[in-house]
Amino acid sequence: MTGPLKVALLGCGTVGSAVLRLVDEQAADLAARVGRAVEVVGVAVRRPDRHPEVPAGLLTTDAHGLVTRDDVDLVVEVIGGIEPARSLILAAIESGKSVVSANKALLAEDGVALHAAAAKAGVDLYYEASVAGAIPLLRPLRESLAGDQIRRVVGIVNGTTNYILSRMAETGAGFSEALAEATELGYAEADPTADVDGFDAAAKAAILASLAFHTAVTAADVHREGISSVTATDVARAAEIGCTVKLLAICERVAGRPDEAEGDTVAVRVHPAMIPTSHPLAAVGGAFNAVFVEAEAAGQLMFYGQGAGGEPTASAVLGDLVAVARNRVAGAAGAGPSAYAELPARPIAETPTRYHVSLDVADVPGVLATVATEFARHEVSIATVRQDGYGDAATLVIVTHSAPDAALSATIAALREVPAVRGVTSVLRVEGLS
Amino acid sequence: MTGPLKVALLGCGTVGSAVLRLVDEQAADLAARVGRAVEVVGVAVRRPDRHPEVPAGLLTTDAHGLVTRDDVDLVVEVIGGIEPARSLILAAIESGKSVVSANKALLAEDGVALHAAAAKAGVDLYYEASVAGAIPLLRPLRESLAGDQIRRVVGIVNGTTNYILSRMAETGAGFSEALAEATELGYAEADPTADVDGFDAAAKAAILASLAFHTAVTAADVHREGISSVTATDVARAAEIGCTVKLLAICERVAGRPDEAEGDTVAVRVHPAMIPTSHPLAAVGGAFNAVFVEAEAAGQLMFYGQGAGGEPTASAVLGDLVAVARNRVAGAAGAGPSAYAELPARPIAETPTRYHVSLDVADVPGVLATVATEFARHEVSIATVRQDGYGDAATLVIVTHSAPDAALSATIAALREVPAVRGVTSVLRVEGLS
Repeated sequence: MTGPLKVALLGCGTVGSAVLRLVDEQAADLAARVGRAVEVVGVAVRRPDRHPEVPAGLLTTDAHGLVTRDDVDLVVEVIGGIEPARSLILAAIESGKSVVSANKALLAEDGVALHAAAAKAGVDLYYEASVAGAIPLLRPLRESLAGDQIRRVVGIVNGTTNYILSRMAETGAGFSEALAEATELGYAEADPTADVDGFDAAAKAAILASLAFHTAVTAADVHREGISSVTATDVARAAEIGCTVKLLAICERVAGRPDEAEGDTVAVRVHPAMIPTSHPLAAVGGAFNAVFVEAEAAGQLMFYGQGAGGEPTASAVLGDLVAVARNRVAGAAGAGPSAYAELPARPIAETPTRYHVSLDVADVPGVLATVATEFARHEVSIATVRQDGYGDAATLVIVTHSAPDAALSATIAALREVPAVRGVTSVLRVEGLS
Repeated sequence: MTGPLKVALLGCGTVGSAVLRLVDEQAADLAARVGRAVEVVGVAVRRPDRHPEVPAGLLTTDAHGLVTRDDVDLVVEVIGGIEPARSLILAAIESGKSVVSANKALLAEDGVALHAAAAKAGVDLYYEASVAGAIPLLRPLRESLAGDQIRRVVGIVNGTTNYILSRMAETGAGFSEALAEATELGYAEADPTADVDGFDAAAKAAILASLAFHTAVTAADVHREGISSVTATDVARAAEIGCTVKLLAICERVAGRPDEAEGDTVAVRVHPAMIPTSHPLAAVGGAFNAVFVEAEAAGQLMFYGQGAGGEPTASAVLGDLVAVARNRVAGAAGAGPSAYAELPARPIAETPTRYHVSLDVADVPGVLATVATEFARHEVSIATVRQDGYGDAATLVIVTHSAPDAALSATIAALREVPAVRGVTSVLRVEGLS
């Protein structure tokens, strides 16, 4: 065993400080597992005075200088965001360092270029911590299922929205009220946009889809709807049909039609949806994340665990750190993800989905026929319908079969124009019904 | 891209024939993912006439000749059992071939020697398919959690016993009746010993413990109890306290006592146990397997999927095949599992467990005191007790706190000698209560 492998740490917030502590606490185990000691030799932060817990000799504000230092072997990036993270990672890669990152936004935007740079430099770029915190997910997709054809990945990958939706279901509260509670308890950030508008989940969906389908998917390819328009009525209606509302990240490979010379496409989307309470994802509460994978030969798999937090995320970072360190000791980079498939992204308009629609209608003869005609006119097949009358009004609850999303949207728009329809009280996609 | 990587397949039963078919069907994808084509060049079987689906030119009865053929790069072993699998794998390794195996019995008995041989020869030995079929489990333990400290692994890893116990719970049937049904439906083999007596689960537990704790654990180190003595009464009593009976494989790292210079130990055991119906493992039914992992930093993780069957197992084999093929293309073997810890196995007698005990007692003054005294005399603390009287008799249901298994066994033995105790009607360990 020669000298230690030297690690540069970029960022020292919740995750970074947990990484620093665990590398120190587990020094003996890490050395045994890697075959060489692993030592953090520098920590780049913006405000050194805010990190009294870090030995002063390690702290630096010169991140670029740190990642290009001759004696540094490995770089751990836990700054987050696009810049300066991207420039620093590229500089590290070009200097021959292997990189471990937890940066979902960057990987989802620029994964292709970063992987190309890593391949060119013959170094590793691992980022297990970027999706679903501690849950081993990217490595299983990239390696364990490398001999299988993945059809579908469906996950709850954002803890903040999962907490808000869980509280709405438990208390009957509306979105704003549940968000205020989440903010107060520290489950939502002061600016919750990235979480509640689905940006965080969309970045993770792009990363999952890229690995699952061996193709390049960026955050821009992901159809994204957040949860701010989910109402207490939506949640109540879901419960009435044995469902619960979750923000889902859904990655699907949609088979092409050989007779029309249309190849396979990938449809990647993030939106709230009703799922049956019997679905394994329905029981995933609070800070937990879970991801459901369907593969041709393996069948259904589920991965469950803590999706955020300093220690769980640091566990994933350290798993990657051991892997890139072992590769460094072995003198060869590991296999990168393959992205040979070049599958086009299918627009949401053409993506088949199911809808739950709840209408307040006048209880007059022919109203059901009128409503049913609108669905038929847009070629949307109705799976179930329930009509409950109250005096001169009635509620119609309709669940459709799968149809292109555009046809469903057009149906809803048309229904809003029907005089007998007094209001469209709830419209949500439905997933996981057989 | 140079010529194809050549694969020798040992065995062509349910799993082998699925592997053969998938390698053929997915040839283009495998080539893209590996960087070279992958081709099966020989299939060793005992009775070639029984494999009309395999091209005759591939079939051979000379397994040893096949695995040592100069042009073979990779060997897939799906024969199962100790011999001739061991000799063939060793011959393959010594000839410089990387090996993928689904052989839990062999890995659990002789993993250390096989890994040593692979390390010496500079080749890979992967065996994801040996535990929990399609579920990516060994790679996450070995790699994703390599920077964490795993405390505990608890799994349902045998589908046959899970089916039998599920049916007992659903129908109120006894063990023999449920086994007969399982046999008739093909869920149990004609000789069900390996499954119902826990040998299969024990082999898997040994493999899981070895990887989780970085130490050598063999099947002989695993305390093993099957389900043949689980009665309809046990299952009914479990339901009464909100539990269900499952055959669990439990791997624990038990912290030593520094003050007594006692180091950490590993306790690995397979036995039926009551678990709360709210526990994530309680809902795992039929052919599905699930494994729960608790790690220091990552917290609780769960992996769920199909534990057996040709296609799911073949998915795991192919994942490994892609990995060893990529390593072959890269010109370096991957990192093997580390087993530096040398943790001694803790005997079951000293392993802390909890018990559920159900007694028929005479409803006479002082009986509860007498029973409670027996527990106290063996230093077993009682967590809950419920007494229901019926005329001159009563039922006592006791759940204990955690105590060394030997103390609990001794308590039960002593209770059987108490005159007021008319019968010990149910004794089962309890897991997963907080």
